[in-house]
This record gives sequence, structure tokens and C-alpha cells, in this order.
Amino acid sequence: MNTKIFRNMSYGVYIVGTMDGSRPTGCVANSIMQITSSPATIAASINHDNYTNNCISESGIFSFSIMAEDSPSDLIGVFGFQSGKDADKFDGVEYEMIEGAPVLKRTCGYVVCKVIDKMETATHTVFLGEVIAAEVYEGSSPEMTYSYYHKVVKGKSPKNAPTYLPEEDDAVKSEAAATSKYVCQICGYVYEGDTLPDDYICPICKQGADKIKKVES
Amino acid sequence: MNTKIFRNMSYGVYIVGTMDGSRPTGCVANSIMQITSSPATIAASINHDNYTNNCISESGIFSFSIMAEDSPSDLIGVFGFQSGKDADKFDGVEYEMIEGAPVLKRTCGYVVCKVIDKMETATHTVFLGEVIAAEVYEGSSPEMTYSYYHKVVKGKSPKNAPTYLPEEDDAVKSEAAATSKYVCQICGYVYEGDTLPDDYICPICKQGADKIKKVES
Repeated sequence: MNTKIFRNMSYGVYIVGTMDGSRPTGCVANSIMQITSSPATIAASINHDNYTNNCISESGIFSFSIMAEDSPSDLIGVFGFQSGKDADKFDGVEYEMIEGAPVLKRTCGYVVCKVIDKMETATHTVFLGEVIAAEVYEGSSPEMTYSYYHKVVKGKSPKNAPTYLPEEDDAVKSEAAATSKYVCQICGYVYEGDTLPDDYICPICKQGADKIKKVES
Repeated sequence: MNTKIFRNMSYGVYIVGTMDGSRPTGCVANSIMQITSSPATIAASINHDNYTNNCISESGIFSFSIMAEDSPSDLIGVFGFQSGKDADKFDGVEYEMIEGAPVLKRTCGYVVCKVIDKMETATHTVFLGEVIAAEVYEGSSPEMTYSYYHKVVKGKSPKNAPTYLPEEDDAVKSEAAATSKYVCQICGYVYEGDTLPDDYICPICKQGADKIKKVES
């Protein structure tokens, strides 16, 4: 079995939002797709280990905001590389509440769903949601594809993502290609350059330079 | 609710294969995604009206081949714009049998799954499959995204697709933009040119010139 073929499947990059009691929380997801058009329903796959999973089950509601190519890439760090149990992910980001769920501005737009069914797998829950609100934010750039995120933003997959492939570690692969690379130990982002500035902040997960290690070639 | 936001979700273009007894059959799908990585599982959404749906339920097996940008675009016509009940879709296309399911050559590669669960919705079944085989075909061009299919191939969505939006008919929209356009009455493909050759064949659904009508501007 050659699981590299999974890399040829196409996905978007989405920020899922839900409620932890009265507090908004959420995570990054790729595995979201439309199931039916009338009524519109959506399937979203969320890892059991994501704090968001239990919050969706409890609240019965979730949203997803569609990342645009020009959306702030640190949103992926905020939502993808820390836990909503410990962090108030929506603090300091631009969002609005729609039908009881948080959605992010500076994206292509959003969809809000109420949970109508779910299917369990070994590691993920597939939530089926009926769409109760949807909007386009005019003027955004095209949607960010998963491929764009990897190739252009040079982002990594959170370990809970279905699409995470540990044997395909970009940081390790790129070791041989250049002499000075610095790899974020939190999210795996690769910085290329002779020296890493002391005040450097990882553009993906916002960690400081102390979390970014030089990879010797 | 602005359902145009669904157009900003990212998908691939896949040919699903399964068995109708001893006869291979299948259809086009966009809504396929990976759910878990270990063991690898896949969710695929298939319309109740697709003949393929019942064949997957009966056989308990399905494959999907990932269309590449240079895959023959008439595959979409063969698999997307006719019914497997009436047509032997695999006749005349290059395929091989893997673990009891048909997969298409001239694509990025394939994944074969056995059905382990399913979830019903009003119009579609979401099949959950455990991956039993997967392969990359070396040398193919990048995967065809749904966006590429619409923008570059100028293809249409079959009416059973979750992503089908009748109010967004490209053929109607393009009427105003040029003086001579010819629209395939079967799949909606738009041919631009002063005259349509008598022996013209629709590149999407393989219909002849008699099924392609001039749109007056």
C-alpha cells in the first residue's frame, strides 16, 4: 500500500468554530465536505483528541470559516497548534457570532451548521451538520487550498489531522537541500537563511526564536 | 443564507469504481475525504440516484481513482453524464482490477476500500471505507482540482453532485459575454467559435454536434 497517494487528494483549509459553554473555541480542519445540496448538509471530521470534538458534541453546533490565500497565516498557528482547553483561541482575532457560533473575519466566508448525525471511527468523529447560515465575505482572495498551504505558506499539518503523514516530514526532507535551515520545534515550519533573527516569530504558530532550532546539514 | 460560499470549498475530481455483480461500474465524485490515517479510512458521498450507490452497498467495496490534470477529460463524460445501469462505463477505458475493484489508469493513482460503515442523508449515502490498497502512478501531472475542472477544462457538475448549483449555470452566464457560443444540451459544456464543425464531439460527455445548440446573444 502506497499511502503517498493521499497527498494527491484535494482539500481546503478551514477553521472550525464551536462553543465551550459560553466561550468560543475551535480548531483547524481540512476534512470538510458538502454532502447534500437541498437541504444543504456538511460532513466534518474532527479528531477525538481535539478539545473541539467534545465541544461540538455538547453544543450541537459548529461553524467553519474558509481560509483565503490572504487570510492571516498565524490563524493556523492559533487554531491548529495549541489546545482550546488551555488557550482562548478567539482572543485577539477578528470574529463575529452567527447563530450562536463564532466565525472568523478575514476569510472567504463562513458556514454555520447544527449537528444532525455523527459517525464514529477509531480516531475521528464525522459530524453531519445541516447548514443554518452561510455568507461570503466580498473582496477576499481565492480560497487557500491545502496544497497552497504546504507549497506557498510552507505550513505543516497538525498531528491530529487525517492528512498528517509522519514519514513525509518536510523539515527532514529539506535538510539535504540547503546549508542553513531553522525548524520550528512546535509546528515544523522551516525558515531558510544564514542566521535566525533573535526576535523572529514563527509565522505559523507564533512561537519565538527559542523554539526554532537550526538543522545542520 | 448565501450558498455561493460553497464554491470556495476545495475538492478533487475522482472516479469511483465498484462492482455490479461481476461487471465493473462507477461514477464521478468530488466529495471524498480521508477520515483517519491509522488505519486509513475514507468517507465518500454518493447520491441515492446514482446506480453506483446500490452497487457499493451490495458489493461492500469501492475504489476511487484521482483524476490528474492530464487525465483524459472524456472520462468525466463517460462516468459522470450517463448511468451505469444502461452503459458499460469501463468499456474502452484503460483500467485494472485491484482487490476486486476496478481502477483507472492515466490518473494520479488509486485507493481501494472495503465498506465498514455508512451514514444516510436525505439524498446521499456517506460510505466509510477502510483502505485495503493504494498506489501512485508515477509520471502523472498534478491532481485535477474541482476548480481546475471548472476553470480550465470548463466542465460542468453532474446534477447528482452535492456541489451542483443550478442557479450558477455557466452556460447562461456566458451568453452575454460573446456572440457565438454553443452549449452541449447534455452536460452544459460551452464551445466558443464562429461555427460548430459538423463532426464536433463534446469533449466532456462525447455527444455529437446534434446535441450542441447555439446560444444567441
